[in-house]
Amino acid sequence: MSDEMGLFEAMYNCRAMRRLDTREVPEEDLVKLVDAANQAPSGSNMQGARWLIVRDPEQRQRLADLNRRGVEAYIGPQTGRPDALPHQSADKRARMLKSVVWQMEHMHELPALIIACMEFGQPVDAATMARGGGSIWPGIQNLLLAARALGLGATPTTLALGDREAVAGVLNLPDTMGAFCLIPVGYPLGRFGPVTRRPIDEVMRFDRWS
Amino acid sequence: MSDEMGLFEAMYNCRAMRRLDTREVPEEDLVKLVDAANQAPSGSNMQGARWLIVRDPEQRQRLADLNRRGVEAYIGPQTGRPDALPHQSADKRARMLKSVVWQMEHMHELPALIIACMEFGQPVDAATMARGGGSIWPGIQNLLLAARALGLGATPTTLALGDREAVAGVLNLPDTMGAFCLIPVGYPLGRFGPVTRRPIDEVMRFDRWS
Repeated sequence: MSDEMGLFEAMYNCRAMRRLDTREVPEEDLVKLVDAANQAPSGSNMQGARWLIVRDPEQRQRLADLNRRGVEAYIGPQTGRPDALPHQSADKRARMLKSVVWQMEHMHELPALIIACMEFGQPVDAATMARGGGSIWPGIQNLLLAARALGLGATPTTLALGDREAVAGVLNLPDTMGAFCLIPVGYPLGRFGPVTRRPIDEVMRFDRWS
Repeated sequence: MSDEMGLFEAMYNCRAMRRLDTREVPEEDLVKLVDAANQAPSGSNMQGARWLIVRDPEQRQRLADLNRRGVEAYIGPQTGRPDALPHQSADKRARMLKSVVWQMEHMHELPALIIACMEFGQPVDAATMARGGGSIWPGIQNLLLAARALGLGATPTTLALGDREAVAGVLNLPDTMGAFCLIPVGYPLGRFGPVTRRPIDEVMRFDRWS
């Protein structure tokens, strides 16, 4: 695999790509994403992460409907308030919200929606879900990096999954499984490029915070 | 960066390395780890992740003491029960527990302890922490992969951080910051190698779970 993309190159150029082409993605590549996700560590090595690749058009439509409800609830209170998402410039915020709306309008057409779930081995409630984050998000990050290396856009959203019962109904999840995020995957319409982040001096200290 | 480690090579060979040498790690490399972590995505691009690199001997001793308390509480109920961690073979479980105990005994001597924190912009409680996972663990995974590429061992543990007030006291965290995990970093005493995970057929489905 010596001709594969370098690790740091993938990490530093993994922009959130929400605008995706409707063109189909080879199943082999979708499975590569999940296989990469499956290599990530988990608490006590429990390996509870589970992955659904949704391509069936009716299933995508159902998930797109759930996402629309979540996005409208998220966007509603923000668009009217000039102080919403204050950590970002007005310009950047507006662009992010536009791309979230684009994703909402087109989600049913996107080639694959990958759902990151966790099998807890016991009935899931909010407290269970709260404990699961450290065992599912490392795998999601592996998946995003793998997508970048394969030239695929992939940006997770949790907005579709707020109604846990409705999600479990659409995906036939047993009551021991919870869904953490939905990741639309496809060929990007825009260009990849470097991410912009806070300078390291703002986010790092030695020995103690203050 | 064409001579850097490939993305998939790093992901598939990123074993949990708990036994580490006491040899110092160049500051430049520790900063590279945090810089890689800082590139990861976060919910609504809030970029609340914060990173502490602890090298001061007294600070490491304090964290090692907190970790010992957490490990003893974790290990205590498991060692006596043959059905503990049932997802793993008895042999594998015994090896993992031995390495957790090794880490406990040696934590104060390890060259650097990196603490992954989140700045929430409001006082932290358990509910706040539960919401933060998706914005901190992708960065932690970037850090682990970067460590692998630099030949460093790094395995996160949450056992040191159960007593939130004590941790905040040691690290001088404001009440708006929470600590999610502690990652000892150093040159591994063992050898890197491929991870072993459940077969993909067990963890992946198309369209619906059942």
